[in-house]
Amino acid sequence: MKRKACAEVGIKSVDVDLPEDVSEADLISKVHQLNSDPDVHGILVQLPLPKHINEENVLSAISIDKDVDGFHPLNIGKLAMKGREPLFLPCTPKGCLELLKRSGVKIKGQRAVVVGRSNIVGLPVSLLLLKADATVTTVHSHTKDPEAIIREADIVIAAAGQACMIKSDWIKPGAAVIDVGTNAVSDPSRKSGYRLVGDVDYAEACKVAGCITPVPGGVGPMTVAMLLRNTLDGAKRVIGQ
Amino acid sequence: MKRKACAEVGIKSVDVDLPEDVSEADLISKVHQLNSDPDVHGILVQLPLPKHINEENVLSAISIDKDVDGFHPLNIGKLAMKGREPLFLPCTPKGCLELLKRSGVKIKGQRAVVVGRSNIVGLPVSLLLLKADATVTTVHSHTKDPEAIIREADIVIAAAGQACMIKSDWIKPGAAVIDVGTNAVSDPSRKSGYRLVGDVDYAEACKVAGCITPVPGGVGPMTVAMLLRNTLDGAKRVIGQ
Repeated sequence: MKRKACAEVGIKSVDVDLPEDVSEADLISKVHQLNSDPDVHGILVQLPLPKHINEENVLSAISIDKDVDGFHPLNIGKLAMKGREPLFLPCTPKGCLELLKRSGVKIKGQRAVVVGRSNIVGLPVSLLLLKADATVTTVHSHTKDPEAIIREADIVIAAAGQACMIKSDWIKPGAAVIDVGTNAVSDPSRKSGYRLVGDVDYAEACKVAGCITPVPGGVGPMTVAMLLRNTLDGAKRVIGQ
Repeated sequence: MKRKACAEVGIKSVDVDLPEDVSEADLISKVHQLNSDPDVHGILVQLPLPKHINEENVLSAISIDKDVDGFHPLNIGKLAMKGREPLFLPCTPKGCLELLKRSGVKIKGQRAVVVGRSNIVGLPVSLLLLKADATVTTVHSHTKDPEAIIREADIVIAAAGQACMIKSDWIKPGAAVIDVGTNAVSDPSRKSGYRLVGDVDYAEACKVAGCITPVPGGVGPMTVAMLLRNTLDGAKRVIGQ
């Protein structure tokens, strides 16, 4: 999908397919090679990596000027800190905020609940909403009575990876709901034998929410768009230098 | 206070006093000199800096191996991210967690409310509590009805810098309250003309809270202790190499 989107907008994308048993050193050396290639403006390492490779070492090897996924801890640190600006925002969180803004959802002063605290979605989207002056609560697997907390939210970001976990009666009428979950559930009626559903029970929740993103077709395409945007911004910065 | 504490435990501390009109380049060059001095295991830049100096540039110049204040964005990023460990935790947030742990306050699964979102206290303490599996809400100047949110908290970290802002009836009976505020209020009965009070109305809140830190004498000394601990840890890492 990312490849196709690049082709559509005229960004040249190059796949570097390495064998699954590639050594960490060889993978990092490949990253360094791309870091120093002036024709490359964005590098993304497809996760998850094989178990024998340390993800932290690989992601930290990406030049922060080309970290279009925004996962480098220096980018996350600057995203978290007041008065600092990361070079790139992680794509899915950036897409969530873009969806809220373009839908006219007020963020400042609103109660936001983020369900999930992963490094790639839950955590950075919490930090972004806080920077946008929402009052943010992060709900996770150890949270007691998540329903009660979610019910108070004007904005719900569901990124738990639990199929249809969030029911319609957990949602405050009129709330904005962004469903980041992409869960495969078995569906014998499909040729593939499965279908994708979000973390929210969409069919019922859409009757209560003020606005809600579907799965598939909601956050996913926006994530791809943000990746292209980050790559373009990175290229512009280099050209502007 | 930091100087005296160093002397007490046998850590040699050196003050580098620079004139207020020092240039940013000279200050950063001083930081670089300390970075490369093998006898120095911890560097802290006393904030706030004069207005003509960019705080971000100066703090980012400190070697992360010697960043005993833990304010480098790379340290904050690793503090925020699951599965990553910063070299140093910021001292006041680390002290808050230490106080909770040593007082036997359960954190995992509890509702925690952090009042304030500064880079040096509110934000990192929120991230630390989240990592310790609390359900964390960050309250700030744009939060509507902060009382209602604070009233649900098992753990309250007050770091807003507003004298006696948090009243006793905002506190859930039995909650653990850590008061990070240090506010000078005028007091003609004192020779100095002022006294220090926290963000919590201590006199009344101590009747409701399960445990509560006083101001002065609560978080302050713990912050200094954590700074010494960080410096010791930094030195051990170097010696262990």
